[in-house]
Amino acid sequence: MPKLIGNPLYHWTHLELKRYFDCDLILSDKTVDTIWELTAEKLASPEMSARGLIKSSRVEALCTTDDPIDTLEYHDAIAADDTFDTQVLPAFRPDKGMNIERSGIAEYIDKLSTASGVKITDLDSLKEAYLNRLDYFDARGCRTADHGYDDYVLFVKPNPYAANEAFKKALASDGKEVSEEEAALYKCEMMRFFGGEYTRRGWVMQIHMGVMRNPNSVQLSKLGPDTGHDTIAGKNCIMDLARLFDLLRASESLPKTIVYSINPVDNAAIGALIGSYQHSDGSGMQRIHQGSAWWFNDHNDGMRSQMKTLASLATFGNFLGMLTDSRSFTSYARHEYFRRILCDVIGEWVEKGEYPADVDALGQMVCDICYNNTKDFFGFKL
Amino acid sequence: MPKLIGNPLYHWTHLELKRYFDCDLILSDKTVDTIWELTAEKLASPEMSARGLIKSSRVEALCTTDDPIDTLEYHDAIAADDTFDTQVLPAFRPDKGMNIERSGIAEYIDKLSTASGVKITDLDSLKEAYLNRLDYFDARGCRTADHGYDDYVLFVKPNPYAANEAFKKALASDGKEVSEEEAALYKCEMMRFFGGEYTRRGWVMQIHMGVMRNPNSVQLSKLGPDTGHDTIAGKNCIMDLARLFDLLRASESLPKTIVYSINPVDNAAIGALIGSYQHSDGSGMQRIHQGSAWWFNDHNDGMRSQMKTLASLATFGNFLGMLTDSRSFTSYARHEYFRRILCDVIGEWVEKGEYPADVDALGQMVCDICYNNTKDFFGFKL
Amino acid sequence: MPKLIGNPLYHWTHLELKRYFDCDLILSDKTVDTIWELTAEKLASPEMSARGLIKSSRVEALCTTDDPIDTLEYHDAIAADDTFDTQVLPAFRPDKGMNIERSGIAEYIDKLSTASGVKITDLDSLKEAYLNRLDYFDARGCRTADHGYDDYVLFVKPNPYAANEAFKKALASDGKEVSEEEAALYKCEMMRFFGGEYTRRGWVMQIHMGVMRNPNSVQLSKLGPDTGHDTIAGKNCIMDLARLFDLLRASESLPKTIVYSINPVDNAAIGALIGSYQHSDGSGMQRIHQGSAWWFNDHNDGMRSQMKTLASLATFGNFLGMLTDSRSFTSYARHEYFRRILCDVIGEWVEKGEYPADVDALGQMVCDICYNNTKDFFGFKL
Repeated sequence: MPKLIGNPLYHWTHLELKRYFDCDLILSDKTVDTIWELTAEKLASPEMSARGLIKSSRVEALCTTDDPIDTLEYHDAIAADDTFDTQVLPAFRPDKGMNIERSGIAEYIDKLSTASGVKITDLDSLKEAYLNRLDYFDARGCRTADHGYDDYVLFVKPNPYAANEAFKKALASDGKEVSEEEAALYKCEMMRFFGGEYTRRGWVMQIHMGVMRNPNSVQLSKLGPDTGHDTIAGKNCIMDLARLFDLLRASESLPKTIVYSINPVDNAAIGALIGSYQHSDGSGMQRIHQGSAWWFNDHNDGMRSQMKTLASLATFGNFLGMLTDSRSFTSYARHEYFRRILCDVIGEWVEKGEYPADVDALGQMVCDICYNNTKDFFGFKL
Repeated sequence: MPKLIGNPLYHWTHLELKRYFDCDLILSDKTVDTIWELTAEKLASPEMSARGLIKSSRVEALCTTDDPIDTLEYHDAIAADDTFDTQVLPAFRPDKGMNIERSGIAEYIDKLSTASGVKITDLDSLKEAYLNRLDYFDARGCRTADHGYDDYVLFVKPNPYAANEAFKKALASDGKEVSEEEAALYKCEMMRFFGGEYTRRGWVMQIHMGVMRNPNSVQLSKLGPDTGHDTIAGKNCIMDLARLFDLLRASESLPKTIVYSINPVDNAAIGALIGSYQHSDGSGMQRIHQGSAWWFNDHNDGMRSQMKTLASLATFGNFLGMLTDSRSFTSYARHEYFRRILCDVIGEWVEKGEYPADVDALGQMVCDICYNNTKDFFGFKL
Repeated sequence: MPKLIGNPLYHWTHLELKRYFDCDLILSDKTVDTIWELTAEKLASPEMSARGLIKSSRVEALCTTDDPIDTLEYHDAIAADDTFDTQVLPAFRPDKGMNIERSGIAEYIDKLSTASGVKITDLDSLKEAYLNRLDYFDARGCRTADHGYDDYVLFVKPNPYAANEAFKKALASDGKEVSEEEAALYKCEMMRFFGGEYTRRGWVMQIHMGVMRNPNSVQLSKLGPDTGHDTIAGKNCIMDLARLFDLLRASESLPKTIVYSINPVDNAAIGALIGSYQHSDGSGMQRIHQGSAWWFNDHNDGMRSQMKTLASLATFGNFLGMLTDSRSFTSYARHEYFRRILCDVIGEWVEKGEYPADVDALGQMVCDICYNNTKDFFGFKL
């Protein structure tokens, strides 16, 4: 920890110690025992339970990440529970069914057949099955879908017949015989399908792109996926993303959208790109957004850089603010971290005379970025 | 407007209100009516005509962007008009004849035949036609050509025979049967031709690269091209640009050159690249330059970043300064915007002790960057 | 020089004038004669000899860059010389034998046969020859190898049989008939070999990637290679580098490693990547590092940017600090330049309250980054 100067872990740790443990100590070998005892004692108290932390952090709504085959039974249970006020909404994450080039796809589609009650044999029945699950999620308050584009976005001109053939080949060979181009063909076709359905339901589509998954095969075989080894792929795919957006837009299937890239190098290109596809749904609302600095960019410099690029290229007052997908219940402190950096960036602009020191207008803007814009954009009913 | 904190539109708007309308108000829903009336009244006065604004902005010379087939009749008319002192020079922009893979190329080449009086049937006659137009532009004071490389630069080893075949195929099929490689072959061959001719005439070649044109086909069909939807392609092409420069250099066809990339990510690579091709024409002048922060980079942070990278990698005192290709006659304020940022960057270096506080030397450097360097490099006679 | 505001040449020059010539003057046309005389006089003194400058700069150890075929006779001579205390160690740079697609490879391999005493006819005998040279270097205190990956890293799945065929084809055709893929196949195979041998010997592997060599063929034919014309290739190759690391890791052939990219755009991707391959050798030491800002990034802004990205993504306290590969004996001032920037970056963090103002801890961290970390990582015995 003492060596982590300049690292967000350093900042987060001390902010969490302060906010959740009322502890001002600096974590080092000199203080580690005291902090261990102090936090162990605090953690034993009932207000430090998951529900207690959510409550004390004044969380009004949170979204879980769910597979289309998930039963959402706990969402039903929480909704029926009068003792817990926070809305816990599902979010639709269909990545497993999108990556038809990976082994396990045949088994996964079987499960999707079971979950949806639709026997899946081709693209038509697949879409029917997904429609069932989209409705199921929608009925439980789902407002958003999340698509993870690993490595890079690859666009291939739409061809429903060939996409269907690719899908059937994936089922027959459990992904083995599917080429990169066939997989891309299928994904583009399905993005058009999903985009249309999200549009119809008023959902927000989130695209997270550019992660290189499981680069370390030794650790993968020891520990499995999602164990901290993923990294930045770095391959530029903005033109392909633009072509995908154009395909969706031309078929009225470009829903409200938020784009996140794991590579900070993409910030300017995304800031420009979102301008190319803005279109009105009659609400006057900006429909295409760049998301907050994500994953390896979710730190002081990364946030500042994303904010400044976004402000230079788009309408900063419409920014949707912070998203935390941490699994830790004390990580809500990262929202405070974001807000402090946001206010510091805005304060710098004002101090340099680049915006009037109009505290009312600035206060409103900060509230919008930190709360109102997201509430309105996702359509949360709080 | 109130939401555009940090955006150059915010800065430009208020600087234009101040400089051209003597108005200190901040544009918002509270002031919009007052500003509307005030600006409407001002705009009615004769000094706010196009000529009036050019005059009051003390513009000594400006370059229009012209197609090789343009008649330049208005340039002749302005030159003959004793009531207007600003030099209005043509600039040569041959993009339409370069993009032989696009439909419309056959009709365009027909027009070029007409304009030049040379019946174009192959590469030899095409070059003869262009020679005619180059001389025509040169006789009207043209000092620069502008090449827009959309998407990315693709280098293909020169092959005049195959380039000629590609061109004839483009004429016969109106661009339809031309592959990406054939188009690149033709473009490389023509760049060598143009580069040689620009060198002979002492013109400056400007290369603007990396724009993804018309990414939104819905808006393209509604509104046409150049309606604000273009974006950053993002694909790195520095190695191909280097090979193109090497081809030109080896055939003594690398003229005085300015490179602009729409992607800020290219700044360092361009800063390094220009050093690789510096060569002397005997004047002691730096021949290969990076241009000022362009398009999506033409803002406070983008300019600072370009300036600092350029200073770190090249000779900042030789910088050619600001270029505005805005269509607005009040956008000359952007030159003041540039100069303020320039002086702020220089001032920061001096305050940190990284350069002596020698006001004479610094003042000369600012004058050079803002005026003298460009005048000398282009060879404007003012 | 007066035009080089913001350029490291400006800073280095004046720091060298101050430290080695006790001269406070600013270099310009007004002072050039005085400085010429003053430096000429100083340079005539014995303490300004190469050995004198190394001594007065308090250099404890330095590494030369050597080809595997080099005899290292001067290393033996210096080691036997009691009048010179600085350790002068060889570093192993096998690039010439790696680039089998270039002409001259056959002659080079002949020389390697002679130097090693092993007749090289295929991959097995090549490896035997290299083993001889690795041991020869190791016996003379070599602690590190340096691999220059020009243009970009290209990964090809390992295939020892095909790699052997590629190598034999290179010998037979002097590189001419070797395709890019064959060369990559050979390089990946050899990297696995070298990585394993470096691991066994506890050497540090340094990878310098992304240089576009000899982009200007006119100057190449006039002046030869390494004459200041090389530039930034700019092509992203992080996924291929990751696959190469995974190959090495899976065969226990990933040694202690330092990665440098010539393109600053890669900073974040490298900062993330090094985290994916950390593994223990039992010492508790971080094994995979990003190196200090290199070549076109070796300046004030480039160093700050590299430091801040590294701090955000990795453990800044483990940073290995400055490397200078300058050929000038007064360029040791660049280490002071680095240390000043390092302390300024750290000071900014402290002033903003992002780290405690604990001078003992910070002083230790600065000493570690500037001296101890490198000494321990390379295993120098000082």
